[in-house]
Amino acid sequence: MTAEPVRASHELPGFVRSTVDGYAVRAADTYGVSEGLPGYLTVSGAVLMGAEPTAEVKPGTAVAMPTGGALPHGADAVVMIEYTAEAMPGTIEVVRSVAPGDGVVRADEDARAGDEIIASGRMLRPQDLGMLAAAGVTSVRVHARPVVTIFSTGDEVVPPETETLRPGQVRDATAVALAALVEDAGGVGVHGGIVPDDPATLETKLREALAASDVIVISAGSSVGARDETASVVARLGPPGIWCHGLAIKPGKPTLLAECAPVGGDPGVPVIGLPGNPRSALVVFRLIGLDLIRLVGGCTAPPPEPSVRARLDRDLASATGRLDVVQVTVSGGAATPLFGLSALLSVLTAADGYIVIPEEATGFDAGTEVDVTLYR
Amino acid sequence: MTAEPVRASHELPGFVRSTVDGYAVRAADTYGVSEGLPGYLTVSGAVLMGAEPTAEVKPGTAVAMPTGGALPHGADAVVMIEYTAEAMPGTIEVVRSVAPGDGVVRADEDARAGDEIIASGRMLRPQDLGMLAAAGVTSVRVHARPVVTIFSTGDEVVPPETETLRPGQVRDATAVALAALVEDAGGVGVHGGIVPDDPATLETKLREALAASDVIVISAGSSVGARDETASVVARLGPPGIWCHGLAIKPGKPTLLAECAPVGGDPGVPVIGLPGNPRSALVVFRLIGLDLIRLVGGCTAPPPEPSVRARLDRDLASATGRLDVVQVTVSGGAATPLFGLSALLSVLTAADGYIVIPEEATGFDAGTEVDVTLYR
Repeated sequence: MTAEPVRASHELPGFVRSTVDGYAVRAADTYGVSEGLPGYLTVSGAVLMGAEPTAEVKPGTAVAMPTGGALPHGADAVVMIEYTAEAMPGTIEVVRSVAPGDGVVRADEDARAGDEIIASGRMLRPQDLGMLAAAGVTSVRVHARPVVTIFSTGDEVVPPETETLRPGQVRDATAVALAALVEDAGGVGVHGGIVPDDPATLETKLREALAASDVIVISAGSSVGARDETASVVARLGPPGIWCHGLAIKPGKPTLLAECAPVGGDPGVPVIGLPGNPRSALVVFRLIGLDLIRLVGGCTAPPPEPSVRARLDRDLASATGRLDVVQVTVSGGAATPLFGLSALLSVLTAADGYIVIPEEATGFDAGTEVDVTLYR
Repeated sequence: MTAEPVRASHELPGFVRSTVDGYAVRAADTYGVSEGLPGYLTVSGAVLMGAEPTAEVKPGTAVAMPTGGALPHGADAVVMIEYTAEAMPGTIEVVRSVAPGDGVVRADEDARAGDEIIASGRMLRPQDLGMLAAAGVTSVRVHARPVVTIFSTGDEVVPPETETLRPGQVRDATAVALAALVEDAGGVGVHGGIVPDDPATLETKLREALAASDVIVISAGSSVGARDETASVVARLGPPGIWCHGLAIKPGKPTLLAECAPVGGDPGVPVIGLPGNPRSALVVFRLIGLDLIRLVGGCTAPPPEPSVRARLDRDLASATGRLDVVQVTVSGGAATPLFGLSALLSVLTAADGYIVIPEEATGFDAGTEVDVTLYR
């Protein structure tokens, strides 16, 4: 994320540049010419690519120009080669007139000296790198990537590499997916590990992580007891502590947002406690966590959310007073909702994206045009 | 890009799992109960997270369950804690009936043993990594990332780190931007370097690159002469050689597509010759090059293009018979076209995305709803 605007140290392209193949001329020498009444100009030289022009365009003369060449002294336009012909060796006829500035870009048309060419607080896209290269900028001040420590909690959670599960055990699916989302938002995901349902251990781990993290994310156990214990531990890390515990959103209701251990006048470390089941955790983190990490990382202009417009192919009910997130597949302009319990990851892997049903709506009828935010 | 489908080696979650906090019961024991006429059950134990249940649910008994716990033997449903109360120590009353399967996910509800959990030919998204982790899959066969060698040609082109330009010189803006686009499409961008306008040198460089590349991209010089020379050199690398030279697209008309030096029955190396000016080159490469690199990289299910729907805030003219690509900014649902010569990179850096005006259209009126493909 850029930490300051980047300005052009000199104008770009830096010279008056031909945009066509043809002849550099004085525009006035072409006024009034036509197919029926061509003008005639003496060719006094040629411009070479990448070289400073040596020939000068005097009244009644023209200089051969490649696209991208520098306009020679005396010329103010370029006639396209298509509107010229060699009348005799060393002389061309011109059948179309040009105005000053035709066939060229100004020396400062891509940027003036001092122009901001890249704004602060944005992620650099391919074309932004191109613009920086054009301006000779090969290093840029950026914000440090925020360090996001990710904890998984719960006595039932075991590492993904566990070959055989005992009944009641689940492999940690959330941490690796959260780390990938963190990377997408420009952060560095750090695995804090799997913490058993033991408040003292969790508190020790969180205090260690606070010192080394810009954001902490906890998948906070699935049972009410485990969630309440996580909340108690997080509250002890404050003040200001817990901002909210519970969101009017489905899936993702038992989400905890907190700010812990501010130092001096600085804000504290944001702590996000996510629901225990992987699908809810990933839905909430995508809605709230990504923007938080971008913000902490200095992003003031978050990229627009990628989406496609599609037509719902069946009715979709929703309770008012809460935000509903519904996964869909998209095919041929039709969005098909995927139903399933919030515990199911397979719904997320089958989905192309999701629809948000706002708090005030009771659902959407089949045929409604909806915006599908795309997973990528 | 995954090179084969990934299947679950066992069912997921692998055990009948509670989705609520409450009591594991035999559903039949709750039939007919209500607020006015509660049923009473003896609590015979509790399930612990991550542990195999030891208690059994016999007729008339219940076992305390945390969300995510394994259903004990004998039970077929879980009653939410909200619909129970402790009547006396060791006994609960139940005020709402459940059907078999209520409050649980089946042992194979997220995946059956042998189910394809990740398709072949797709880029893994965060949730896909989560699903793989849940299934205990920590390594996956993937296609090698295609190696894309990028050449910049032209006597006028100098490296981005060049501090002071002579008139007529431009820094290489295209190569770094193309490399970033190649990465986005899953490829590895290799800088082939800047090649002067000298056919023999270009041919030597291209022949070297053919042996080590899956795709070759050349920004092919801006003048007609330079482009024709590039085409001649590429033709000498064939057969089959040049597929097409020139596309009905603006910007980007002088684009060259070729296939060079097939070995045995294998297809040759795709070669894309791009227009010399950076903006045209990047527009064409985004339309054609990204999908080509994905295809070469084994992607059979390219992700949907991210876009937003917006309303044009002014008329936009276009010539029929060619595809027009117009950069726009998007703000508050309105798309504002950015005009400028195809040589200008600043149009691309200012843009949020682009509109494609199809061949058969003569433009769009102000107020038309358009799909803006987003740059990111």
